[in-house]
Amino acid sequence: MKETEKKIPMVVIKRLPKYLNYLLDLMDRGIVRTSSQELSALTGFTASQIRQDFNNFGGFGQQGYGYNVEELYSEIRKILGLDASYNMIVVGAGNMGHAITNYIGFEKMGFCIIGLFDVNPKLIGTEVRGVKIQDMSSIKDFLSEHEVDIAVVTLPKAVAPKIADHLVKLGVRAIWNFSPVDLKLSEDVVVENVHLSESLMTLAYKVKRNNTTAEE
Amino acid sequence: MKETEKKIPMVVIKRLPKYLNYLLDLMDRGIVRTSSQELSALTGFTASQIRQDFNNFGGFGQQGYGYNVEELYSEIRKILGLDASYNMIVVGAGNMGHAITNYIGFEKMGFCIIGLFDVNPKLIGTEVRGVKIQDMSSIKDFLSEHEVDIAVVTLPKAVAPKIADHLVKLGVRAIWNFSPVDLKLSEDVVVENVHLSESLMTLAYKVKRNNTTAEE
Repeated sequence: MKETEKKIPMVVIKRLPKYLNYLLDLMDRGIVRTSSQELSALTGFTASQIRQDFNNFGGFGQQGYGYNVEELYSEIRKILGLDASYNMIVVGAGNMGHAITNYIGFEKMGFCIIGLFDVNPKLIGTEVRGVKIQDMSSIKDFLSEHEVDIAVVTLPKAVAPKIADHLVKLGVRAIWNFSPVDLKLSEDVVVENVHLSESLMTLAYKVKRNNTTAEE
Repeated sequence: MKETEKKIPMVVIKRLPKYLNYLLDLMDRGIVRTSSQELSALTGFTASQIRQDFNNFGGFGQQGYGYNVEELYSEIRKILGLDASYNMIVVGAGNMGHAITNYIGFEKMGFCIIGLFDVNPKLIGTEVRGVKIQDMSSIKDFLSEHEVDIAVVTLPKAVAPKIADHLVKLGVRAIWNFSPVDLKLSEDVVVENVHLSESLMTLAYKVKRNNTTAEE
């Protein structure tokens, strides 16, 4: 396993989607050229932070000109791997599984949901935005017949770890995890967690702190 | 505005929900006592990191004994403000609004959804888990009649900033934001963002990187 690419800190990577969103806004408004100052005003990051971030990938900008919006947008897309498209399956067709499958924005970004799975007999056979809900037991066959890049796991805490293990054994190499539990998987499996409960608890802290400070 | 409490870094606060989840697991398994080593094995944080985190709030532990699980759990809950309960409204009754309202876990944590709002006439009057969907225009009256701690915003990008501004003018002081846009609000309003698209883009990067490394 050779390291040819310069390792970019994840904290930088996590800022790239935000740049992308604002660059898209600029493009929508017909703006051709931007600067680290303008991006700073939009994103809230400092201009020097922004220049540093872009330097991780070799710059893009030109002294005195700034950045070409479309070029920068396209470069960041490439870095994030968004110039490719991804096949996803959603494992767990509950409320969150429905919400994710119904949201058209992910497809626009290149993430196509090609399979939806659940154990609930009432759900199996029904469709969500044209994707039929299949029995969980058919995942194995499905994975052998389709190329799946990402499994979205929206299962209850009690079953998520076991089913995630199973998915990995069947060859899944990336999991977008909405279950309120940490999945402990082998190191070659990438996991991105969306822990809503943790987010809400953090908000509770901020609310509490805000109230306390305001009363003093 | 006096600062009586020691300011705890947000990065520490963001780790507390994870401790809480694992402590709850330990309690469910009838375990009374734990250690920073055991918590390290569970959470993946280092033992010294964990001890440091807890020291921010004055310790809890006893040399040679470790931590009492229930005591630690209850202390962290207090710090996060989870010993109180919170009233929430959900603004936007689309897929995500439905998913959040339907999820019973938040209520168990003390977050009660008492109102649900949308502009879609087809939705208005219907119910989600006992909460009736009301017309967006009735938010003002609702807020004057009910104490609302948190507004959950699950609106399309195009309308989210304007409606968030409106909510703040009506007195909302905390927003849990699911809209794919940054809300720029006054500093006394706390916002916690759940940007799913950004999370998915980060995952795409990890997938791409994993594939590239694997092929080398």
